[in-house]
Amino acid sequence: MKRYEQYIRKVVPYVPGEQPHFSDMIKLNTNENPYPPTPAVQEALQSQQGECMRLYPDPTAHQLNAAIAKAYHVEEEQVFTGVGSDDVLAMIFQTFFNSDMPILFPDITYAFYPVWCSLFRIPYEILPLNEKFEIVPEEYFRPNGGIVFPNPNAPTGIALPLSDIERILQHNAESIVVIDEAYVDFGAQSALPLLEKYENLIVVQTFSKSRSMAGERIGFAIASKKLIKVLHDVKYSFNSYTMNHSAIVTGAAAVADEAYLQKITAKIVSTRENTKKVLSGLGFVFPNSKSNFLFVTHPDLDAHALFKALREEHIFVRWFDMPRIRNYLRITIGTDAQMEKLFAFLQHYLDTQKK
Amino acid sequence: MKRYEQYIRKVVPYVPGEQPHFSDMIKLNTNENPYPPTPAVQEALQSQQGECMRLYPDPTAHQLNAAIAKAYHVEEEQVFTGVGSDDVLAMIFQTFFNSDMPILFPDITYAFYPVWCSLFRIPYEILPLNEKFEIVPEEYFRPNGGIVFPNPNAPTGIALPLSDIERILQHNAESIVVIDEAYVDFGAQSALPLLEKYENLIVVQTFSKSRSMAGERIGFAIASKKLIKVLHDVKYSFNSYTMNHSAIVTGAAAVADEAYLQKITAKIVSTRENTKKVLSGLGFVFPNSKSNFLFVTHPDLDAHALFKALREEHIFVRWFDMPRIRNYLRITIGTDAQMEKLFAFLQHYLDTQKK
Repeated sequence: MKRYEQYIRKVVPYVPGEQPHFSDMIKLNTNENPYPPTPAVQEALQSQQGECMRLYPDPTAHQLNAAIAKAYHVEEEQVFTGVGSDDVLAMIFQTFFNSDMPILFPDITYAFYPVWCSLFRIPYEILPLNEKFEIVPEEYFRPNGGIVFPNPNAPTGIALPLSDIERILQHNAESIVVIDEAYVDFGAQSALPLLEKYENLIVVQTFSKSRSMAGERIGFAIASKKLIKVLHDVKYSFNSYTMNHSAIVTGAAAVADEAYLQKITAKIVSTRENTKKVLSGLGFVFPNSKSNFLFVTHPDLDAHALFKALREEHIFVRWFDMPRIRNYLRITIGTDAQMEKLFAFLQHYLDTQKK
Repeated sequence: MKRYEQYIRKVVPYVPGEQPHFSDMIKLNTNENPYPPTPAVQEALQSQQGECMRLYPDPTAHQLNAAIAKAYHVEEEQVFTGVGSDDVLAMIFQTFFNSDMPILFPDITYAFYPVWCSLFRIPYEILPLNEKFEIVPEEYFRPNGGIVFPNPNAPTGIALPLSDIERILQHNAESIVVIDEAYVDFGAQSALPLLEKYENLIVVQTFSKSRSMAGERIGFAIASKKLIKVLHDVKYSFNSYTMNHSAIVTGAAAVADEAYLQKITAKIVSTRENTKKVLSGLGFVFPNSKSNFLFVTHPDLDAHALFKALREEHIFVRWFDMPRIRNYLRITIGTDAQMEKLFAFLQHYLDTQKK
């Protein structure tokens, strides 16, 4: 063994999430939006000149940040953008979570929080959701080095009321509290209105879900100017140019079309509510999701067996090999037509099982 | 002061490189290519459908990596791509430089090497260039935790012959040796042919210079399958989707057009050689650059004063407030027309100084 091999960073090898490609597939496994982005994105793509590519992109991503600021009624100095909300969240962890006290997050939540803690050597404490898979605000009233959770939480889809988020903020004036709102546009209350009162709050959102832009990798944080300035300082100190020209122009175009966002999220919410009725009728049980996915279980079915049966039919959903949730499936809300195919398969599968 | 403020990461605040916008400006400050990318990039931009954006990009960036592999006659498993070569280099530092022994790099070189060392807590030792600003291979024949330098070096533009790079590799079979070839296409010898013999070699290149694609943020590493697999393992472990859809499709289009690359780099080399003659005639002194910039000084001129005088004329070049090189300017090679304007100004400036 060469000496350099001893000094290679040790990681748990990870296979990126399945991105299957079948012409007939129904892809309900990564919470993508079944509808295309606003036509304004197509126009922005077409309007790009190869000539623009020769220059470095604007390191401040001014065009994009200004468009986000306008859409969310904040100042541009309150906006930080990154290569997907993963990049934004990782930068927040690296910038703000340097205490010896553990940061707090739920046991069932976004899988990358513990990964970034390990990467940046951040101590953390996992707080269990209650038996209904809800975040218990009182659990977060303890000394900590920071707090982070998604709202709605993933993969449960359960939203915490704004009043509970405010209680957590009231008990944590000395900590940075990060609310990861990847799925907020599908029916939860955003914590953005709390920014005026709480300088320690950071709200993170993404273009990957409600804005149908997963392919362009755009996430953002909105917080006080003070915290956003620090994030920029840290980012510029080691990587000035993260947002490419295409992401800046298409992102700016996407965020300007509020009407389209309302239209497609309303469609998805409507499909979700119908899906709840149908799946209930089939005997499935699930928390009351406010996101673009349902987290379902069935008293008579083995979730992993069902997951594999769905795969056979080229219907892709997500199964987690984790304590407490091994008998659940996370199903992204697709189009009505896609969900109808899912319902038909599930009906058939249940009939077969009963024989 | 709030408690969380104590735990904010301390960085040296850094202002990203000046990206001025004047219609009449001559921008010779960030080593961008004065020519647009291949028309194939324009076609790739136009061919994108907004619809593609709704899905996550391919985390393996297969289309791009395969195109790079084909262009450089290596296997796809030998290619790692990132968001600019900064992202690739940072990932290499983080993955391979975990020894307690210092990594080695020159005193006058790319400014981000010590920054990443500080970010990832990597010990380092700075080895001075000789009085001609050349890398001295023998200096690198000492115990180390890794080696990295650009070839040609920046901001000197001096290229190290392949035989010297091979000597460094021969003396460092137990270390990872990274050759940062951002500027190699302008006349230096690439270390790629040495990959067959040295499994510890990593060659890093970028689309930002010779391929006129700074705006899309595409860098890559080529090395043994073994080292590239480890890089992918580390990357996937904490951020699976870094290359967006636009970068993947435009990058693949760009790298396939070898003839265009040859054509525009030949033009830049020709302009560079002419610039050397003219600047020599004006009394400037500089190392023999093999890159797309010259690193110049003048026995009768104060570089910082000249830098400011050029700015007044909207001619932007780069001055470094650093030991040994305070009386130098780094001037990117632009078009012939841009260089003519630079020459005219310098002639006039010298005439004025002599009065």
